[in-house]
Amino acid sequence: MKFGIIGSGDVGKTLAVALFQSGQQVMVSSRAPEAIASFIDENPGILSGNPFETASFGEVIINCTPGLKSLDALLPLKHALYEKILIDLSNPLVFPEATLLPSAVNTDSLGEQIQRLLPETRVIKTLNNVNAKIMVNPELLGTLDHVMFISGNNFLSKQIVTDILKDIFGWKHVFDLGDITGARAQEMLLPLWLRIFEKTGSAAFNFNIVKKA
Amino acid sequence: MKFGIIGSGDVGKTLAVALFQSGQQVMVSSRAPEAIASFIDENPGILSGNPFETASFGEVIINCTPGLKSLDALLPLKHALYEKILIDLSNPLVFPEATLLPSAVNTDSLGEQIQRLLPETRVIKTLNNVNAKIMVNPELLGTLDHVMFISGNNFLSKQIVTDILKDIFGWKHVFDLGDITGARAQEMLLPLWLRIFEKTGSAAFNFNIVKKA
Repeated sequence: MKFGIIGSGDVGKTLAVALFQSGQQVMVSSRAPEAIASFIDENPGILSGNPFETASFGEVIINCTPGLKSLDALLPLKHALYEKILIDLSNPLVFPEATLLPSAVNTDSLGEQIQRLLPETRVIKTLNNVNAKIMVNPELLGTLDHVMFISGNNFLSKQIVTDILKDIFGWKHVFDLGDITGARAQEMLLPLWLRIFEKTGSAAFNFNIVKKA
Repeated sequence: MKFGIIGSGDVGKTLAVALFQSGQQVMVSSRAPEAIASFIDENPGILSGNPFETASFGEVIINCTPGLKSLDALLPLKHALYEKILIDLSNPLVFPEATLLPSAVNTDSLGEQIQRLLPETRVIKTLNNVNAKIMVNPELLGTLDHVMFISGNNFLSKQIVTDILKDIFGWKHVFDLGDITGARAQEMLLPLWLRIFEKTGSAAFNFNIVKKA
């Protein structure tokens, strides 16, 4: 499968390497090509392009831009993203307070805003509430008994992303929260995530749902 | 220990019975005494009173009023709640949308609003994200490996409530999120809780933190 990764921070780079190592074709974009030159040198086979080239290249696109910049970054790619799957793992976090953007919380979410911005794109929210290393290697926690949430309006696209999570990254439990309004619940997990990170000093954790047997 | 339970819905009644059966003294309040007359008849030993009597009776008070009514219900009890522990398990949910009250989310929370309303009371947020049956019997899930969050400004009071959770209700894992601003994270779990409830059709679940071994 061909993946286009928009954004070349730690998350974008980690996903690119994991996808490439699993045998996928991967292009990573940066608005400043010099910023990823050494990464591309160190990872022969991974392609680089500008954001439009990357969105055009990929069959599945992953939004790894910072949440507060995602709408601006994605709007110019509207044509290239037409009818494609866009995995959105961004969070509309406002630092240093680490609160969520007031316009994207509770009765709205960044996932929904991206879906409204790109109505012909299949926006699938997932992976936003774990550290990049866990995204691509959930077994890092010593067990696979923890859960990844997913939401999106297009059922078939959600199934394809679920398969990517399970077959490429090794997730065992993927919980479907329903349509893209489920992104509210996923993004509103961040305050809890950040508190636990602050208290334990480690990002190596995730949540599980414990059900009555 | 003497417990005063403000609010006599299912949550208040469930807590009252569990506390009484563990040997505590318990008074339950209702603004309409006839509404709990049959409950009091069926549970000899559990006391009833008006909200002020109940807040005066208890050493530890539990707010079981609906979230949107909590501030109005608690303000008249300010004097009776002076320097006491107030366990707050309410959520500022607006139905039928089941969103959180916009004025009590992200940069504020109901827990913090109650603490500001009652500055001389030790407000401890906990138990707000599980069903009443699980609050008082976490082993109902077939395991004790799931977590209850707690937050509050007064460390000693938080320790007392942690002991109540563990010794009376049987919780194994209580995770301290810090000061009462942790209530934001706790209340913002509700959209996720409600989605999971909607998808699974069961309230018999809770979350666990899965950490790197």
